[in-house]
This record gives sequence, C-alpha cells and structure tokens, in this order.
Amino acid sequence: MIGKLNHVAIVVNDLEAATAVYRDTLGAKVSAPVDLPDHGVTTVFVELPNTKIELLLPLGEDSPIAKFAANNPAGGMHHLCYEVEDIIAARDHIIAAGGRVLGDGEPKIGAHGKPVLFLHPKDFCGTLVEIEEV
Amino acid sequence: MIGKLNHVAIVVNDLEAATAVYRDTLGAKVSAPVDLPDHGVTTVFVELPNTKIELLLPLGEDSPIAKFAANNPAGGMHHLCYEVEDIIAARDHIIAAGGRVLGDGEPKIGAHGKPVLFLHPKDFCGTLVEIEEV
Repeated sequence: MIGKLNHVAIVVNDLEAATAVYRDTLGAKVSAPVDLPDHGVTTVFVELPNTKIELLLPLGEDSPIAKFAANNPAGGMHHLCYEVEDIIAARDHIIAAGGRVLGDGEPKIGAHGKPVLFLHPKDFCGTLVEIEEV
Repeated sequence: MIGKLNHVAIVVNDLEAATAVYRDTLGAKVSAPVDLPDHGVTTVFVELPNTKIELLLPLGEDSPIAKFAANNPAGGMHHLCYEVEDIIAARDHIIAAGGRVLGDGEPKIGAHGKPVLFLHPKDFCGTLVEIEEV
C-alpha cells in the first residue's frame, strides 16, 4: 500500500542554521525558505537524489509544531511521510487493521497541495506518520 | 556531498508487532528478521520503492540501542543514514565545517558491511546521522 518515502520532516528552532548544516556541512542541495502560513510552518526542502528532508520552523502563534520545537531545542525528527495512491482506500485499510488516524479522519490539503492524513504515533512504532495521496 | 537517504532507522521493543504494522497495516514489503550480533541489533528491512526503513530491536546486553529502546516504549525514530561516495573525504569536510563525528573518528564497518560513521545529533538538527560509503 505505502509507496515512496516522500519526506522526512525535521523540526528546528533556527532555520538558517539548519539550512547551513545541510547545505554547507553535508553538502546537499537546499531550497529557499517557504512560508506556509496555513500550515503554521516555514519550510526548507533538502533535495536528495531519492527523497527529501523537510526542515520545519514554527510559523505563527498556533503552529502545530510549536510545542515540539520548544521541547527539542536542538531540533528533532518529527514525522515520516509515505505516499499512497488512494488516501481513502489507505485510510480505510489502516483503520480496519487497527491503526488510529488523527483528527476527524477526513483528509486535509497538506503542505504540498495534496490530500494528507496523520496516523497515531503509538500505533506506528512511536513515529508520527503522514500519508499523502500522489 | 551526501547522496541518497539509505535508510531511516526506527528502534522498537516488539519486532514482531512492528513488522506487522509495516506489513499488514501499511502494506509494505518486509524482510525476515536478521540478527546482527556484532552490532547489537536484530533488524527487519521495510523495502520502499526509493529507500528503506530499518526496524531495530536491541540484541544482547551491550546493545547500543538498549537505552533508546528503554526510553521509548512505543519505539521511535533513531537515526537517518545518508550515502557518501568517499567517507574519509566526507568526514574531513564535516569536521572542517564544524560538525562533530562520534567515537574516534575512524570509520567502522556498519550493518551493511560498508564503512560508516555517526555524527553528533546536536550538530545536525537534533538528529543522529549515519554516513555510509557506498
């Protein structure tokens, strides 16, 4: 069911410093920062040959990653995003298998403009999982 | 410098349950468990079209992931592994840029039989980073 790993999201408190780590220390290709006010994040994309790392900085007072950022001063891995072909079919399969979907279970439009859902970390090896329809 | 994301490592306390989550709930292709006593882990590979998830269970009394597993009962993301072409050149570049390499700085043979180094999480966005020469 799940396809490619679309991205690994890393929450940081200093986006410039994090960008420099990936660009200068690790020598990766990075994007300019992009504000996504509807999602409460500013993001920099680290483009690897096979997937992306997304560096996320809280944006605004209601950012969904504000608490995580405050709890992880040096930053930290926040979630993994897997691609699915049909998010409704994927959701129904996951629920039938006993996995919990966060929120009301209805897909939202995610940061890439595509339908997404988040899955409960306790049911997925302690990992917050996003599924995105591509 | 860094190339592909080789794998995301997730430490778990119940490898059978974690394997079932990825195989049954998420519908991914998973390997049989492999004991790697020299590395203190039993691992299951989740094969995605573009990268791998490695589920790691502590093996033996001196497992390097024993403490992480104990601190994360539901499991948790443990490290990211990036591929490099030349691990000595990568190491020297990282150190020159101010990044700390763990241990004595000499590459060890990793779980895939290739030279690896681990980088200090505090210098890499709160993320334990492995680099592997491929």
